[in-house]
Amino acid sequence: MLPESIIWKNGELLLLDQRELPFEVRYAACRSAEDVAVAIKNMTVRGAPAIGAAAAYGLAMAAVSEDFERSAQTLLESRPTAVNLSWAVDRMRRLYHENTGLPGKELFRLLEAEAVKIHKEDIEINRKIGFFGQQLLPGAGTVITHCNAGALATAGYGTALGVFRAASEAGKKIKIYADETRPRLQGARLTAFELFADGFDVTVITDSMAAFLMSRRKIDAVVTGADRIAANGDTANKIGTYSLAVSAHFHSVPFYIAAPLSTFDIKCASGADIPIEHRDGSEVREICGARVLPDEIDVWNPSFDVTPAELITGIITERGVIRAPFAGRIKELLTEGAVANEK
Amino acid sequence: MLPESIIWKNGELLLLDQRELPFEVRYAACRSAEDVAVAIKNMTVRGAPAIGAAAAYGLAMAAVSEDFERSAQTLLESRPTAVNLSWAVDRMRRLYHENTGLPGKELFRLLEAEAVKIHKEDIEINRKIGFFGQQLLPGAGTVITHCNAGALATAGYGTALGVFRAASEAGKKIKIYADETRPRLQGARLTAFELFADGFDVTVITDSMAAFLMSRRKIDAVVTGADRIAANGDTANKIGTYSLAVSAHFHSVPFYIAAPLSTFDIKCASGADIPIEHRDGSEVREICGARVLPDEIDVWNPSFDVTPAELITGIITERGVIRAPFAGRIKELLTEGAVANEK
Repeated sequence: MLPESIIWKNGELLLLDQRELPFEVRYAACRSAEDVAVAIKNMTVRGAPAIGAAAAYGLAMAAVSEDFERSAQTLLESRPTAVNLSWAVDRMRRLYHENTGLPGKELFRLLEAEAVKIHKEDIEINRKIGFFGQQLLPGAGTVITHCNAGALATAGYGTALGVFRAASEAGKKIKIYADETRPRLQGARLTAFELFADGFDVTVITDSMAAFLMSRRKIDAVVTGADRIAANGDTANKIGTYSLAVSAHFHSVPFYIAAPLSTFDIKCASGADIPIEHRDGSEVREICGARVLPDEIDVWNPSFDVTPAELITGIITERGVIRAPFAGRIKELLTEGAVANEK
Repeated sequence: MLPESIIWKNGELLLLDQRELPFEVRYAACRSAEDVAVAIKNMTVRGAPAIGAAAAYGLAMAAVSEDFERSAQTLLESRPTAVNLSWAVDRMRRLYHENTGLPGKELFRLLEAEAVKIHKEDIEINRKIGFFGQQLLPGAGTVITHCNAGALATAGYGTALGVFRAASEAGKKIKIYADETRPRLQGARLTAFELFADGFDVTVITDSMAAFLMSRRKIDAVVTGADRIAANGDTANKIGTYSLAVSAHFHSVPFYIAAPLSTFDIKCASGADIPIEHRDGSEVREICGARVLPDEIDVWNPSFDVTPAELITGIITERGVIRAPFAGRIKELLTEGAVANEK
């Protein structure tokens, strides 16, 4: 059984410490928005939808005991690339300011209920993404995924891995290759762990093997998650996604992004507007505590990259699959709330 | 000062243990061909030209004290992909059989002299590769390399890194990005170490970052080594080379292979004929002693991949740069020994 990524219990947020997986299952307890911001920054919790839900709980805790606006700001600054974080913070912030006249306890209950709603909605959204996404996969086939866009990256079920779960529930037989995803190995440590726990046929490869795999075996699709999608469809996701998209393009393998609508940021016209987080070089110099490179040697460590819309076959959302030309469809979905169930 | 990869001293072969670099400089002493085969297999010594030279010394030691043919066979089987190994073994074997009537000591001296010649020739060849290769680089520019095709991978100077050394000796300013090269991290542990020791401007990236780097900064060339080149120019090299070639192609970055003529195998019509070594999954499951993946999770671990000739801008040899159409030029160079100094 896969442990839950996020547990809200007695006014305390328990976050599965994803840095210790797969060898230790340990929860970190957060008792303030500040604690949650630290857990996001140090990657105790990671995955765009999961950090959105965690931040919502953080702001419920901040409602009475902390400076709400400062807490909101600290959370917003904890990681710059994923936009679900600011989406969740904005949603909680709006509710807070509309009800700031209420007695403390009532205000807390209101914000707590909203955080629980964001948390539960995320699971529902993932199931809808799975519903639309699994229709893109054959009855029996082979896919590649990158990083972890699974139950661990979300409130549960997952986006990219939710697509595979839905395919399996529909009786399809899907073999999955998981890129290990250097530098932090979320593919090896989290995706393989998560899929193996759920009985999937999963094989780990190094990131550098994906292109060769495509040249040697029939790959039916690549499916990854996203941290922020610009108005034109350009998609920021874990470093290595772009390389995988270029390889998929070269081998004519369909390349899909699976992400909730909260991942879209129409304030970014294109990928050039998405801020890319660069993390400390120690993530490359050390691997799970083993040192591979001395400090004096330079490292370049962008945590995300941008895949241009031209390389994306489709974006799987809870309202259907968006295909090129992306810009018009994205605007439609986000501003009019239109239901677009396309395949 | 960079330590020498291969030292022949008092009838004993000292191999720099490349598994311990960059943190420990330690030599393994080989006193028989059997010892050398073990050192090749466990990657104490690695790099196609280096294992060729090491095998030659191994057969000099086998001339008197061991079953020569069995030793030759054991060496040939120690690693299947690099062809320089069988090239060196065949050269030593021919000399042995032509002189098998000689007294033991004389036969040993003859084979020892041949191994020393192979060793020294390799350095000369690398300098010639550097001479031709550096002409392809601008006066100031940025390159990417993969794995380690340096002094450590050869008898000295290096093939791909020899090109950068020659550029530097010609007064050019070359900034080098080194792919870390999972699973065994030869780029991080060896190339960065080697280039840093020689005063180069070197930055390490994970393999998954190379494509994104190409999209964000001007890259003037990719230069890698090779383990075996087929008659049509298809090139087997360390896993990840193909992914890099696909990315270079997509970004219109020139992609060069630097390799001595002993790397060509015209018995292989194309890359499909080159045997690809698959190594134990523990190479992916553990990194420098740190465990990242439990044993029960499957791993696919090809040690090499094949880059088709169409993705190669040029192959830099000691006789000049071969460009498409490759097949005719390769045959010319190998069978007629023609000097083809092309740019």
